[in-house]
Amino acid sequence: MPLLLAPAAQDLLFREARTANAFTDEPVTDAQVQAVYDLIRYGPTSFNQSPLRVLLIRTPEARERLLTHLAEGNRAKTATAPLVAVLAADFEFHEELPQLVPHAPALKDTVFADRPRRETEASLNAALQAAYFLLGIRAAGLAAGPMTGYDPEGLRKEFLDDDHTPLMVVNIGRPGPDAWYPRLPRLRYEQVVTTL
Amino acid sequence: MPLLLAPAAQDLLFREARTANAFTDEPVTDAQVQAVYDLIRYGPTSFNQSPLRVLLIRTPEARERLLTHLAEGNRAKTATAPLVAVLAADFEFHEELPQLVPHAPALKDTVFADRPRRETEASLNAALQAAYFLLGIRAAGLAAGPMTGYDPEGLRKEFLDDDHTPLMVVNIGRPGPDAWYPRLPRLRYEQVVTTL
Repeated sequence: MPLLLAPAAQDLLFREARTANAFTDEPVTDAQVQAVYDLIRYGPTSFNQSPLRVLLIRTPEARERLLTHLAEGNRAKTATAPLVAVLAADFEFHEELPQLVPHAPALKDTVFADRPRRETEASLNAALQAAYFLLGIRAAGLAAGPMTGYDPEGLRKEFLDDDHTPLMVVNIGRPGPDAWYPRLPRLRYEQVVTTL
Repeated sequence: MPLLLAPAAQDLLFREARTANAFTDEPVTDAQVQAVYDLIRYGPTSFNQSPLRVLLIRTPEARERLLTHLAEGNRAKTATAPLVAVLAADFEFHEELPQLVPHAPALKDTVFADRPRRETEASLNAALQAAYFLLGIRAAGLAAGPMTGYDPEGLRKEFLDDDHTPLMVVNIGRPGPDAWYPRLPRLRYEQVVTTL
């Protein structure tokens, strides 16, 4: 048994967790989202830059505005999910670096003074944090339904600004009836891992 | 207690896990890496595209070639880590889609026929998988030391090809003496999460 993580935790996070397409109407509370964030914020990012930002869509009005930017096939499930989150990368993350990297206050105005560099690094590191967030939702016993089928520029203009780019929209809740399709195949180890 | 994941698992994956900068000389086996992959391959990606590719650096010759492309501050620790992995995104992931999405064999030649679209999607989805991989290393009771301080073009030309882009280099092993710096602060919930 080469993994130290308990089998039940392996199942919860990876093997039995699935991308849900239908949800019950049980609410997802702010306390649950805070517990998820307070765990996953410790996941590593380059220079601790922590560029992920999360927008929770709670009002019916905000949900309606969101739906108009989604691919048609994503609208019905997003209309009924107990909670919807827009995950975004903050290209101005360097403003928080004095708090995040207090021993190197110069980083903000040297290494990260360059906006194109910040855009590249924020896109990678916020994606890492998005993955931590998805697993954190599963750690809370909830199902996540991440989606990239939307108009990114429309979504940005509707909810964000020029300093933020959307990474994904995530439906969150308890899985409802027929919540998922059969599990799709995955690549074998030999197809993914090579050794030199 | 809003999280279902057991506290010991929370600690193993997030709270007590740290980015290691020093390692013992205990080897990391292929069986360990395979156990990690066989767990994390179930993490979600858009359309199950699964674009992450992993290159394990095992021979001293390959390690020497790798070191020349790293930022100077990353060389000493990478020279002594029991195992080093180069994580990359495969821009030609669509070739595997008939295996990965057998019910929609047309995806390969329609939605994903466009190389720029594949590059964008592979970069996001391989980053998600890189995060799953880092947590999988921790699930195996090992420490990971992810690094983005390297010459990406140099690394690509040394080990990859035009169809692959490096995402990060990861040192893997048991943490050694003085393996880490004090934990850096994280952003508070209110700084990251907003609600509409």
